[in-house]
Amino acid sequence: MSRTETAARVPTLATVLDVIRERVTVSRVELAEATGLTAATITHAIRELIDVGFVHEVGTAASSGGTPRRLLELEPTACYTVGIQLDRFTATGVVVDLAGHIVARSSMAGAQEGEPAEVLRFVADHVNDLLATAAVPKSKVLGVGLATYGPQDRTAGVLLTAQPTASWLEYPLTETLSEALGVPVLIENDATAAAIGEEGLGGARSSFATVYMAGGIGAGVVLGGQPYRGATSNGVELGHISIDAFGPACSCGNRGCVENIAGPTAVVLKANTIPGLADRLRLRGDTVADFERIARAATSGDPDALSILEESAAVLGTATVSLVNLFDVARVVIAGAAFATAGPLYRDAAQAAVDRAAFMRFAHPVVVELSDHVSDAAAIGGAVAVLRRSFEARTARSGAPAGR
Amino acid sequence: MSRTETAARVPTLATVLDVIRERVTVSRVELAEATGLTAATITHAIRELIDVGFVHEVGTAASSGGTPRRLLELEPTACYTVGIQLDRFTATGVVVDLAGHIVARSSMAGAQEGEPAEVLRFVADHVNDLLATAAVPKSKVLGVGLATYGPQDRTAGVLLTAQPTASWLEYPLTETLSEALGVPVLIENDATAAAIGEEGLGGARSSFATVYMAGGIGAGVVLGGQPYRGATSNGVELGHISIDAFGPACSCGNRGCVENIAGPTAVVLKANTIPGLADRLRLRGDTVADFERIARAATSGDPDALSILEESAAVLGTATVSLVNLFDVARVVIAGAAFATAGPLYRDAAQAAVDRAAFMRFAHPVVVELSDHVSDAAAIGGAVAVLRRSFEARTARSGAPAGR
Repeated sequence: MSRTETAARVPTLATVLDVIRERVTVSRVELAEATGLTAATITHAIRELIDVGFVHEVGTAASSGGTPRRLLELEPTACYTVGIQLDRFTATGVVVDLAGHIVARSSMAGAQEGEPAEVLRFVADHVNDLLATAAVPKSKVLGVGLATYGPQDRTAGVLLTAQPTASWLEYPLTETLSEALGVPVLIENDATAAAIGEEGLGGARSSFATVYMAGGIGAGVVLGGQPYRGATSNGVELGHISIDAFGPACSCGNRGCVENIAGPTAVVLKANTIPGLADRLRLRGDTVADFERIARAATSGDPDALSILEESAAVLGTATVSLVNLFDVARVVIAGAAFATAGPLYRDAAQAAVDRAAFMRFAHPVVVELSDHVSDAAAIGGAVAVLRRSFEARTARSGAPAGR
Repeated sequence: MSRTETAARVPTLATVLDVIRERVTVSRVELAEATGLTAATITHAIRELIDVGFVHEVGTAASSGGTPRRLLELEPTACYTVGIQLDRFTATGVVVDLAGHIVARSSMAGAQEGEPAEVLRFVADHVNDLLATAAVPKSKVLGVGLATYGPQDRTAGVLLTAQPTASWLEYPLTETLSEALGVPVLIENDATAAAIGEEGLGGARSSFATVYMAGGIGAGVVLGGQPYRGATSNGVELGHISIDAFGPACSCGNRGCVENIAGPTAVVLKANTIPGLADRLRLRGDTVADFERIARAATSGDPDALSILEESAAVLGTATVSLVNLFDVARVVIAGAAFATAGPLYRDAAQAAVDRAAFMRFAHPVVVELSDHVSDAAAIGGAVAVLRRSFEARTARSGAPAGR
């Protein structure tokens, strides 16, 4: 029987920091009220956050009781984390400060058919460029979170798949990138990262699912602020559930997979079968760029492009219903580079699908939203995952209480 | 945003009792070793279990240290719980003692098209008969767990569906049955109950999924000993995910639902379309009995019956892959009355499907097993749920520590 990776209780430091991030300046009393933590726990946490330079005092405010309250403020430049989202067709990098603001971002080419050593060299160069752009010294970088496809072994920092080429299988991704950059590197499933990016440090204790589409399709689930992990963090693989049990074989071993029927590659392939459409939309054989052209044409009213996207969105809507019917979430956030332009169309189709068919719609409504960071969610999540891990490690070391 | 029903930590009393159940006689020191709880927590828990008469001392055993250890033993007749599994086509009742042994069981007709008042009167009579058979006085019955279909509101004790007739929608199920029997009644999703029945009190902290088929199809997931709940315990609804996005409409609002394509009703309908088969198998228009006849014919080598069941099992295998790919579990238990005879055939098909297509099969194997209580799992789970709830309430009242 497998050991389950149970979600750690939200570490106190992250909970406290989430509130400070949100309120800009805040007193200890307000923190206790907002978090439900005891005054002693807050005092302990703040002392630790001040010690490491994440938080400082910025004067006092009058309180109703007469005793002035010392106000606390975040030091956004105390440290930074880097998030990289990478799949076959898409890649994005972000540098995020302690306040959660993106201080540098850029898109780059995906892994394509590249060999891992070469792709990682390219990623490392890119991270160095991003840090240079933002004038962030390496000494202030807590680490890099690489949000990428699966299956993967997060602990070992390797992929358990021979995609896109055989040498990616068990290639030491985190080790190689960490050596190249001189900072710790972790890997995270891209769709799970998108969900983590949406939730932040976990202080909000939200529960929702993220439907993710970039080069492929995936999903992540957050429950009470913590990502759903299952046995090995290789679940919520929405792109590889069958919506056509006797449909076309997929390289994953399944048939009629959502990704093969509705993903960007399938959409572009379909567009190329319609006489004249490829020429009209100037498709050029690059999946991401072509998908984006189809999306723009669809939103501009091209009936063929619209019809292709609507078909894909209907399938993803059906998959969303499956996700909701299995996980019973009340909120679905759609995120990923493929939704940059087509997001509203997919969101509306998914909302219509859950309104029509979510099994528990009489128990509670299910709302489908487009992420505020639709293209960057997974990269942001990679960066947030690094900060979460550092807090988890710090909480474990300091023995600070982890619950409310 | 919805509040998530997060799983309570396994209550100490249940954890302790699980070990006592398993070992028959056990010392406090052995309990501390087996559970990882501190000696003080064990002492506290045992005092409480002795106070309520669940456990008693049965003499001493020599210990390696010289001081004799007092041995503890369960008092199996201290209390009983009742589990009833009820759906449209199937129903089973069990009376379970504190040791987890079934002291009475029987099958009965499902709800059919009956009105709730009438069906509940029938269920109440049945419970009274079961208790009389087992010579269990009502005063020793902690409660009744009604494992039934959904969607449902567990807190209110009502169904949120107008199945099988309009008057079932929000009918006060638990209130009516509780008044009729004079003991507390809770409701639980039948497939979740089957998973709870498989896990027991939660002390084993197992993680697995249960694929359940009785009158319909469902699933349950247990993570670290606790049932997966989601927002409202209406998830893991495997029967109502689509494996044919453009397939036949289902009354749930979805299309191509697993249950409609592969469930007992679909299997029996299919059998009736094959010339001569209904006569040959003596099908008589009763879904459960007819499905069982088809299963027996298939296992006896009838090629038509076998072909129909294999088609259903292939679809359920695909659905099992979806369940595994979304929840990332390493073990799947199949349970439910429909598997009484056909279980091995469905198990083999599901095992073949996950071996071929489980997304994380390179991270860990996924094993499919047939439940030891294939027909009774949901009813047993209903009974176990009552005992779990009484421990949760007791732990909450006594303030006993709930963690390890």
